[in-house]
Amino acid sequence: MDPNTMTPARKKIILDCDPGHDDAVALLLAHGNPDIELLAVTTVVGNQTLEKVTRNALSVATIAGITGVPFAAGCDRPLVRTIETAPSIHGDSGMDGPEQPESAIELDPRHAVDLIIETVMAHEPGTVTLVPTAGLTNIAMAARKEPRIVERVKEVVLMGGGYHVGNWSAVAEFNIIIDPEAAHIVFNEKWPVVMVGLDLTHQALATDEVVQRIAKIGTKPAKFVMELMDFFQKTYKDAQGFDFPPVHDPCAVAYVIDPTVMTTRKVPVDIELQGKLTLGMTVADFRAPAPDDCHTSVAVDLDHKKFWDLVTDALERIGEPTLDGGADATAVAETVLVGEAK
Amino acid sequence: MDPNTMTPARKKIILDCDPGHDDAVALLLAHGNPDIELLAVTTVVGNQTLEKVTRNALSVATIAGITGVPFAAGCDRPLVRTIETAPSIHGDSGMDGPEQPESAIELDPRHAVDLIIETVMAHEPGTVTLVPTAGLTNIAMAARKEPRIVERVKEVVLMGGGYHVGNWSAVAEFNIIIDPEAAHIVFNEKWPVVMVGLDLTHQALATDEVVQRIAKIGTKPAKFVMELMDFFQKTYKDAQGFDFPPVHDPCAVAYVIDPTVMTTRKVPVDIELQGKLTLGMTVADFRAPAPDDCHTSVAVDLDHKKFWDLVTDALERIGEPTLDGGADATAVAETVLVGEAK
Amino acid sequence: MDPNTMTPARKKIILDCDPGHDDAVALLLAHGNPDIELLAVTTVVGNQTLEKVTRNALSVATIAGITGVPFAAGCDRPLVRTIETAPSIHGDSGMDGPEQPESAIELDPRHAVDLIIETVMAHEPGTVTLVPTAGLTNIAMAARKEPRIVERVKEVVLMGGGYHVGNWSAVAEFNIIIDPEAAHIVFNEKWPVVMVGLDLTHQALATDEVVQRIAKIGTKPAKFVMELMDFFQKTYKDAQGFDFPPVHDPCAVAYVIDPTVMTTRKVPVDIELQGKLTLGMTVADFRAPAPDDCHTSVAVDLDHKKFWDLVTDALERIGEPTLDGGADATAVAETVLVGEAK
Amino acid sequence: MDPNTMTPARKKIILDCDPGHDDAVALLLAHGNPDIELLAVTTVVGNQTLEKVTRNALSVATIAGITGVPFAAGCDRPLVRTIETAPSIHGDSGMDGPEQPESAIELDPRHAVDLIIETVMAHEPGTVTLVPTAGLTNIAMAARKEPRIVERVKEVVLMGGGYHVGNWSAVAEFNIIIDPEAAHIVFNEKWPVVMVGLDLTHQALATDEVVQRIAKIGTKPAKFVMELMDFFQKTYKDAQGFDFPPVHDPCAVAYVIDPTVMTTRKVPVDIELQGKLTLGMTVADFRAPAPDDCHTSVAVDLDHKKFWDLVTDALERIGEPTLDGGADATAVAETVLVGEAK
Repeated sequence: MDPNTMTPARKKIILDCDPGHDDAVALLLAHGNPDIELLAVTTVVGNQTLEKVTRNALSVATIAGITGVPFAAGCDRPLVRTIETAPSIHGDSGMDGPEQPESAIELDPRHAVDLIIETVMAHEPGTVTLVPTAGLTNIAMAARKEPRIVERVKEVVLMGGGYHVGNWSAVAEFNIIIDPEAAHIVFNEKWPVVMVGLDLTHQALATDEVVQRIAKIGTKPAKFVMELMDFFQKTYKDAQGFDFPPVHDPCAVAYVIDPTVMTTRKVPVDIELQGKLTLGMTVADFRAPAPDDCHTSVAVDLDHKKFWDLVTDALERIGEPTLDGGADATAVAETVLVGEAK
Repeated sequence: MDPNTMTPARKKIILDCDPGHDDAVALLLAHGNPDIELLAVTTVVGNQTLEKVTRNALSVATIAGITGVPFAAGCDRPLVRTIETAPSIHGDSGMDGPEQPESAIELDPRHAVDLIIETVMAHEPGTVTLVPTAGLTNIAMAARKEPRIVERVKEVVLMGGGYHVGNWSAVAEFNIIIDPEAAHIVFNEKWPVVMVGLDLTHQALATDEVVQRIAKIGTKPAKFVMELMDFFQKTYKDAQGFDFPPVHDPCAVAYVIDPTVMTTRKVPVDIELQGKLTLGMTVADFRAPAPDDCHTSVAVDLDHKKFWDLVTDALERIGEPTLDGGADATAVAETVLVGEAK
Repeated sequence: MDPNTMTPARKKIILDCDPGHDDAVALLLAHGNPDIELLAVTTVVGNQTLEKVTRNALSVATIAGITGVPFAAGCDRPLVRTIETAPSIHGDSGMDGPEQPESAIELDPRHAVDLIIETVMAHEPGTVTLVPTAGLTNIAMAARKEPRIVERVKEVVLMGGGYHVGNWSAVAEFNIIIDPEAAHIVFNEKWPVVMVGLDLTHQALATDEVVQRIAKIGTKPAKFVMELMDFFQKTYKDAQGFDFPPVHDPCAVAYVIDPTVMTTRKVPVDIELQGKLTLGMTVADFRAPAPDDCHTSVAVDLDHKKFWDLVTDALERIGEPTLDGGADATAVAETVLVGEAK
Repeated sequence: MDPNTMTPARKKIILDCDPGHDDAVALLLAHGNPDIELLAVTTVVGNQTLEKVTRNALSVATIAGITGVPFAAGCDRPLVRTIETAPSIHGDSGMDGPEQPESAIELDPRHAVDLIIETVMAHEPGTVTLVPTAGLTNIAMAARKEPRIVERVKEVVLMGGGYHVGNWSAVAEFNIIIDPEAAHIVFNEKWPVVMVGLDLTHQALATDEVVQRIAKIGTKPAKFVMELMDFFQKTYKDAQGFDFPPVHDPCAVAYVIDPTVMTTRKVPVDIELQGKLTLGMTVADFRAPAPDDCHTSVAVDLDHKKFWDLVTDALERIGEPTLDGGADATAVAETVLVGEAK
């Protein structure tokens, strides 16, 4: 906290993502929340190809009017495994649903791995939080290329994994299983890792009430989010049987903003690399109290209201109202609502 | 049900065990409960060596006055892995605590695998339930040697595994991890398998109230159980931090007696054979409703009172009162009670 | 050697097989060679289903006039893996080519595993050699069910594996990879194991010269062998590009008859159970001299002439001449010969 | 070939190494041979820590008088595994034996991964050969960070692996097993890979005759090599039982200079990542002719004389004669000679 202004220092983050419907919301939350200083946005293959998710990231930046933040593309495939994307959830573009604007934003010429390294090394030790919401290829490459970032980073708050829940296999989550070796690297480095996994994010449902709140905001970014949720809800219903889609990625950003938005538990977590049924499982050992040097923790319970308050508050802070005062968004909301609210 | 007597047919079981403190209770429950017809008892390496657990089984039979039931020894090591026993929980004898009587009971000359096969084949199809409360080596060997038992067995109700809980590793349970290949065989045969795992049995705690109820019974078998619980409580406290010991194995027998003693859920379960962190995990896939041909289910919630009612009721039915009218048992109880009841 | 008769004691073997073209030749060699006492023949799923290979074994016995030897069927599937057979090599019957006679021989009622155990236990320690020429399921089951056979058996001379050669994968051989867990059991028990693998058996080619020698014998069994070789040559050419088919299984029997038919080397051998590319590989460690307690050795170089001398000699000792004095066989030979001899 | 000068273009290589006794010889060969243009030297953890092997590389450069070539340090640990070094072979410094000079050469400030990428991208496509003689961490990182180098590189000629020989396990070689995931990346990219493995390099023995030839050269670099061989011979004798040490790494350089120095065979090669006994094995599939798109080949037979001619010729081209006209080196040779030549 700056003693002169009594304003708490904003939390510096690098968002490493693969937009992705929920990545888009994570980016909007990071941009709109006043307590976050978004140092850089990096992209990595995941929900779709690197090319697509990078274009999607720039689209979101354009819609949200993000300026002055470097965006850089990173790895176009996992460390060891072949590429696996998630069109069943995110569509062919990786962010199907809304129409995407032409983006005038230029990519930073650096590789994401170098942008991450240089950004971390350029700031004071213990001030930069990495927020990966995708496969961990970029982060793992950065830790191997410049080992000094491991001590310098404040913490890694990642969306991925699940101690009792899987989605891409019985016990593994997409972001981890698509590059389990990278996850193994990230979880085994000695930086603090907060795993915001499916156990938590399956509580972050975009319920009818949530959709109605967003619909009322009446800005272009909010309308964009509505359109994202419209698509996301349908694919999550079809592919995984959810009534309301779990909006994973902003949970990690929300934790950085306000850790009280969820409970966490310190527990050793490691990544299974050999299992036939369990490849990419985030194996948490709850048998005994976590040892003193345990540097990993997992998110357990979400404060659903506080979480969506953060998201809607951020959306209210960004973007011009639409010309029609939100009528568009309300129209979209009609198509999104799935419950009795309809 | 026999229309003449209107007495329901007793449930025929083969108990395959490795006594083992909780195996002993399982055997007493099977013997004392009037709805169970104990066809055979077989032993297998597990909590201790085959020699020791076989002697323990005969000791329990002697104490309980079990006659007319064949006891046979089976495999002395797991299919593929080297032997791993559990002295940290069950002591050097495998059933430390009470003094063990000399047993006058003679072992059946047959190998347990053959006794299982012959017993199943000698009874009507769909009438014999296998109740393994140990590593699954004998059961797996029987299924491979005589594949016809798979269709003929009514179901396999086993104590082992855990869909969200491990004890011998972060995610694996002792009975499964000591012979994961055997477990793989048993879970992949198409007979109905009810997995009574740690998720359930960690609810079957021998609380102070339970101990006091058993203390009041005042028979030699009850006193024997008290002495078992006395030891079991100490090792479970020391080795795994439990306040009250979980009495795993009788839960499987209790399910056969009365399935309403617990809730179960149909879910595909398979055994991880390759994982470095997850070897022997019982991987349950909860992502979607179980398919129609799903033949595995897992135990979820225990009715604690109903379970211990079954156990105490069975104990009350077997064994002579001690000469001192239960004073001995009460004395033991004093040493067992751990909570406020003391 | 019996000092009274000066006749060396015959070598007692149990042949565990899955006929199979080369298994048939192995059985004929064991039957026809005067130094072998064939105690029992057991069958196991492998080249084809248990039912088919058992029928094939009885067919060969009928053709060769084998009497007084118990034949018993064993395991119908591998320990852990699903069944994989080899119709590309052995055809739909498992022994395609010759017409198969109706067999009047009745199967022994015992399970192969029990026949193996009882036969070993009924003879003096150190007198019975196990000769498995198939997947090792029966042998592994026998070792687990009756561990005492391990010390009692003289040695295990098996056809399978390959220290530098694979056929069912880049580095694994069929008999091992179809039941790697069984192989792991057999190679890790402390009995002497002689692995007659592909390194050796790929030298046991049925060349034109060999075929011509067999053709001249002029008996029904010899004609039968000719017809087997005719089919075998074609599938080995088509499936694996061999000019002459490698006749694997009789090599193991030949080693028992006369170990000088091949060179062997003592070397630790273990079975890979987890490899993605190497599952079922017989991993031999040639880096250092074998330790004193090394109980495994591998066959290296074959004396091609001596081997085929043994086979043809055995064939000459069994079976009536055909009515046409061998003209049939010569006709078959015409179709078998592939080289310049044609 | 430049039509004006009729001088064949020199072969451009980047040497990625972990000196290392044989790495040192490889570097001297690359420097001294007139057909090689050494574009860059990069180092990576392997025979010793990154810090030590980097210092060793600079020492060799100093001794050989290498100037104008960038040296850069790379990864200080393998991608996924923990660090394993080879002091039993290379001593505590990684290059024990000779006294090491203070080096005045400064490291290039770039990370080895970037130096590799920038060097490859700065030259014409198809002109730069990568010559890794260490674990493949740097090369794998470069391929992931800049995928375009894969098409641009002429070929990768690496020392590592062995299709029938292992040294760090029964079937795996040190350079591969210390970072099998990196090796998996390198062997699975579609650039031409020539694997100069133990099958070949165990033929590259520094025999007495070789040592005597080098002794006669009489320069400081030659003396340095003698001292390296003196130490190398002792550790290879003690640790692996070799009479003469195999000088692995220069074989890869020699292949680039003159491919006729060895025979090679096109064969698919992949890396085992899961095996318990076979982790890091370079699995070559010799069962069928290599498919047309096969991009991997393995070195088979070495022309021992031609190889050592190349090495001694290179040594003769670099370095000043020692003051004593080679007497020092001869003295060292006395201690190195192991055979009858002594």
